[in-house]
Amino acid sequence: MPQFLDASTVDFEDRFAALLGAKREDSPDVDAVVADIIADVRARGDAAIIDLTQKFDRLTLTPETMAFSNEEIDSYCAQVNDHDRAALELAAERIRVYHARQMPSDESWTDENGAMLGWRWTPVSAAGLYVPGGLASYPSSVLMNAIPAKVAGVGRLAIVVPTPDGKANPLVLLAARLAGVDEIYRIGGAQAVAALAYGTETIAPVDKITGPGNAFVAAAKRRVFGKVGIDMIAGPSEILVIADKDNNPDWIALDLLSQAEHDESAQSILITDDAEFGQAVAEAVEKRLETLERRAIAGISWRDFGAIITVPDLDMAAALSNRVAPEHLELCVADPDGLGDKITHAGAIFLGQYTPEAIGDYVGGPNHVLPTARSARFSSGLSVMDFIKRTTLSKMTPAALRAIGPAAETLAISESLEAHGLSVRARLDALND
Amino acid sequence: MPQFLDASTVDFEDRFAALLGAKREDSPDVDAVVADIIADVRARGDAAIIDLTQKFDRLTLTPETMAFSNEEIDSYCAQVNDHDRAALELAAERIRVYHARQMPSDESWTDENGAMLGWRWTPVSAAGLYVPGGLASYPSSVLMNAIPAKVAGVGRLAIVVPTPDGKANPLVLLAARLAGVDEIYRIGGAQAVAALAYGTETIAPVDKITGPGNAFVAAAKRRVFGKVGIDMIAGPSEILVIADKDNNPDWIALDLLSQAEHDESAQSILITDDAEFGQAVAEAVEKRLETLERRAIAGISWRDFGAIITVPDLDMAAALSNRVAPEHLELCVADPDGLGDKITHAGAIFLGQYTPEAIGDYVGGPNHVLPTARSARFSSGLSVMDFIKRTTLSKMTPAALRAIGPAAETLAISESLEAHGLSVRARLDALND
Repeated sequence: MPQFLDASTVDFEDRFAALLGAKREDSPDVDAVVADIIADVRARGDAAIIDLTQKFDRLTLTPETMAFSNEEIDSYCAQVNDHDRAALELAAERIRVYHARQMPSDESWTDENGAMLGWRWTPVSAAGLYVPGGLASYPSSVLMNAIPAKVAGVGRLAIVVPTPDGKANPLVLLAARLAGVDEIYRIGGAQAVAALAYGTETIAPVDKITGPGNAFVAAAKRRVFGKVGIDMIAGPSEILVIADKDNNPDWIALDLLSQAEHDESAQSILITDDAEFGQAVAEAVEKRLETLERRAIAGISWRDFGAIITVPDLDMAAALSNRVAPEHLELCVADPDGLGDKITHAGAIFLGQYTPEAIGDYVGGPNHVLPTARSARFSSGLSVMDFIKRTTLSKMTPAALRAIGPAAETLAISESLEAHGLSVRARLDALND
Repeated sequence: MPQFLDASTVDFEDRFAALLGAKREDSPDVDAVVADIIADVRARGDAAIIDLTQKFDRLTLTPETMAFSNEEIDSYCAQVNDHDRAALELAAERIRVYHARQMPSDESWTDENGAMLGWRWTPVSAAGLYVPGGLASYPSSVLMNAIPAKVAGVGRLAIVVPTPDGKANPLVLLAARLAGVDEIYRIGGAQAVAALAYGTETIAPVDKITGPGNAFVAAAKRRVFGKVGIDMIAGPSEILVIADKDNNPDWIALDLLSQAEHDESAQSILITDDAEFGQAVAEAVEKRLETLERRAIAGISWRDFGAIITVPDLDMAAALSNRVAPEHLELCVADPDGLGDKITHAGAIFLGQYTPEAIGDYVGGPNHVLPTARSARFSSGLSVMDFIKRTTLSKMTPAALRAIGPAAETLAISESLEAHGLSVRARLDALND
């Protein structure tokens, strides 16, 4: 059973604050191990990668077999049935179309003094994408990371994916091919992150690393940050559903469970203005938990972190949701657009009862890599913006320099930065001669 | 004397690689001290802030005097002379106009299946800005951090600025007022970062912290990252100038020195296609170093990290610059726009001989907080984007769900996420009834 909270009770604020502050994840401290692995890869390159892959993945590599060959990729892709392939192609195309619309345009203009100002966007030259092996090896995540990179214009996109005992997921390789990935290496863990960041004899270094991974991968990404760019460090998944009574309790139950089944630390919250409906959803969840394949995981998540909150009206639901700043927010209410306008912090909003969050995980088009652990207060999901960067542009004419140069000189002097001021003054003096 | 490199010599590649790889900064390891300070502020709130400010800044605070009062700010602002005030106002206005143009628009559209897709931008609710005290207390940096936040729509913007022995910089307070800052606290160091991230009885927590600081501040920002958002951790400043022989060597020398005077670890590089011109610039630098106020700092930076590189043609200059990915890049050549088109990695480009980099530090309009240490390969300068975040939107109709839902179900099953698939299937079955 999840927690039941009622906003009209006196202890509500304390209980809601406790829910917000609940620590859901205890990451093991693997930082020292990861530091050693990174140092080893930096020192020994390919040899370290080969040794560590033997040790952790029980796989014997050579520099020649580190990357999948085109023929191997062909052969894995051929194992995917037409039904799965068509679904993956539909997803890839929709994700591509959505992300293409995100590309910002370059701007430049001339101000009243004749100065040209503006900016220009350019892609990251090379990016690396970490793809987990084993249970959490999701082809959809390959699409969600790789397609924005390629839409952004990244020239070289490399994937690292561990293949314990040599086993690879054909759907992951097909997703990589559909997304236009350039290189696929069968390596994983902190050593793969180190190889991407620093390079080895066989693997050229990249400028940016994205993608999910376990505690070792996350620690390695933190350590190489600065040398290369990284995306966010993702926490366990979350969903918040705001639903009125005119919903099918079973649909809402399944939406809550579709987060809970990810991870014992995932969190699913329902906010409703109808206590009876909340009760009906709770019952529907229990019924589904009897048969769900991943009921062990989903049941623990729902019991430890699930919550059903009753509120007097939907405005309060929006206000509470904004305090949670959820990764995923479903608005299953009569006027989802109106309620959506009141949402100030959320990674992704799913509007109306025909938009289960799972649509967004696969085929909607928006990215499924989204800010977790309340970080939607200050950050956004993955997008083409993660693979481009802005260069600002300024071009003064003599007239423009005459107009604004003296103020720059004044401020430089006030900050005791004489050379700054002189670099402007020398030009102004020449212009005034 | 700086290093002289000639691209036509056999050892050039080795020497250029060494220049790229030179470690310019050795940050002291203050992480353990900072961890203790943050824990103290979290545990004792205001009391810890008061004790630490007494200890580090020799200043006795109470909860009531932690923030500057409006009357105090008035009184400091009144100390600024009209000349300085006018320069600061001109800078503020130009920075505001430039950053207002950066605001991206919300988008939404309906696809061929009737699905509504799009995204919406919302501001961070509350932001905190760290402003160093003492020597590096720059009013221009207050404008460059605070104005983008306010243009982005940040509702509450708090500044922390240490005032050792109670001394404050009137220009910093005026800059804060011009930028529309809401609260100014006379606290600094790791304790100020902790107060902004976690809050105390007097200081409400914020969602995002930006602004430069010393090693303690940088370590504190790294530690609170995740709880709040942070901007980049800035390294020492850099400039790269590409200049042909038709330039005044003294102007170029002053541009190189305007970075060198910042910091002994700053780096100034000239790339020219005329060895004689390079020599003339080197001589002009030495001459200016005889009298420059900050000649001790600038001289060390120029000697340890400065370089003059001769290349056979400007295309090679652009290629080398792209490998450096400089924070600031000046193009003092006959066709700066043409050469600019060949630049793929740079924080800011200054086009033509009438655009000294110092214009961009103060009054150009673009931000002066820019990616250092080669991180322009994967990151951008500060902008309104640092203070807003994107929420993606999806709204399926029954027809849209029928069109793309089955593919989502297929992919969910392929990833063994049954509840994901069922959340789609339950709706499809109801629609097909």
